[in-house]
Amino acid sequence: MTRISESTVRRLSHYYRVLEEVEAEGGRLISSHRLAEREGVTSAQVRKDLSCFGSFGRRGLGYNVAHLRQEIRAILGLDRRWRVGIVGIGNLGTALMLYRGFEQQGFDVVAAFDRDPARVGRTLGGLVVRDIAELPLVAGDGGLDLGVIATPLKAAQEVADALVACGVRGILNLAPRKLFVPEHVALRTVDMTVEFETLSFALTNLAPPARRRRPRG
Amino acid sequence: MTRISESTVRRLSHYYRVLEEVEAEGGRLISSHRLAEREGVTSAQVRKDLSCFGSFGRRGLGYNVAHLRQEIRAILGLDRRWRVGIVGIGNLGTALMLYRGFEQQGFDVVAAFDRDPARVGRTLGGLVVRDIAELPLVAGDGGLDLGVIATPLKAAQEVADALVACGVRGILNLAPRKLFVPEHVALRTVDMTVEFETLSFALTNLAPPARRRRPRG
Repeated sequence: MTRISESTVRRLSHYYRVLEEVEAEGGRLISSHRLAEREGVTSAQVRKDLSCFGSFGRRGLGYNVAHLRQEIRAILGLDRRWRVGIVGIGNLGTALMLYRGFEQQGFDVVAAFDRDPARVGRTLGGLVVRDIAELPLVAGDGGLDLGVIATPLKAAQEVADALVACGVRGILNLAPRKLFVPEHVALRTVDMTVEFETLSFALTNLAPPARRRRPRG
Repeated sequence: MTRISESTVRRLSHYYRVLEEVEAEGGRLISSHRLAEREGVTSAQVRKDLSCFGSFGRRGLGYNVAHLRQEIRAILGLDRRWRVGIVGIGNLGTALMLYRGFEQQGFDVVAAFDRDPARVGRTLGGLVVRDIAELPLVAGDGGLDLGVIATPLKAAQEVADALVACGVRGILNLAPRKLFVPEHVALRTVDMTVEFETLSFALTNLAPPARRRRPRG
């Protein structure tokens, strides 16, 4: 398989959602144009993305929805279930524990950890928050596939190290800091402030079209 | 100015954080090597990113921390404050309202909206949740710069349209669906499930090194 960029994988995730919707509506075939339209990319991009994995479409007919969905599902690793542990049960960690959308895509939140005695022992979304000291007990031996770090910034690297030491190979970091993990561990960081900054950059550097067009004086 | 890619802007955000830290520690100069090391990129990448905006560094001496921080601050549009409104005060919206990290970087959450009568009128983090019907009243005439969509999937496009109609030019979408906005509006989408899927992809397609090296039979 060709080396796949992270942005291709993200688009595959989106195509997968569109295909789920179309299949639920009873659609059997979808053109690259329609897939592109729904995703706001070009149809050439769609064909290029999908060609990385072999030829799924037939010229003039489009893609078989059920087949393509199954293929992308397998490529994304969604034909199995993933055991997720969340560390740091503050406001954001709590929100993630209560969110039901992950389960639908195969990600089961099976454990939650904090080190604050006021939080440990609380039940949230059917799960008891455990002491972080119990992480090796729960995560060891394949007990957790993925870890989510929702701790304050200062604890984040230490938690990442602990997750890696327990054999967790995929980490989603929500703490606003760069983390370092060994090469065999996959790490994604979501930092809402950085997202805000890409917006403030865009608004600062791209004047609104109406104002640009308005004649001076 | 050269056209700047979104990933460059993201790296600038990260450099900015490193520079803040270094300045707080009393550092006056920083090399591209050190900046690169802290961010896990190459020093050539750092120099390339910073060269988009003019020449800040001196060969052999490195960058003046305070000066570079100020420059990046201006580039990112952080030398002013941004008024943020959050729509959808469920678990995630609540977590964002209570998070104090945005304020530190110039993003003030000044309004929150929901359409559920059970949520409207509640006070969270010093703000009263308003009825979504009041959005034009609050957001019109520059009352809001940025909107965050934390609603369920089905309401997201409608809320985006309403924000755009009120003159909001930057939107952070946290609902798990692609949204469509006019070209003059900046849109970022953060979908945690997509993040999980980039991890499940990585774990499915990259075998752990230990296992790869182990001889068969």
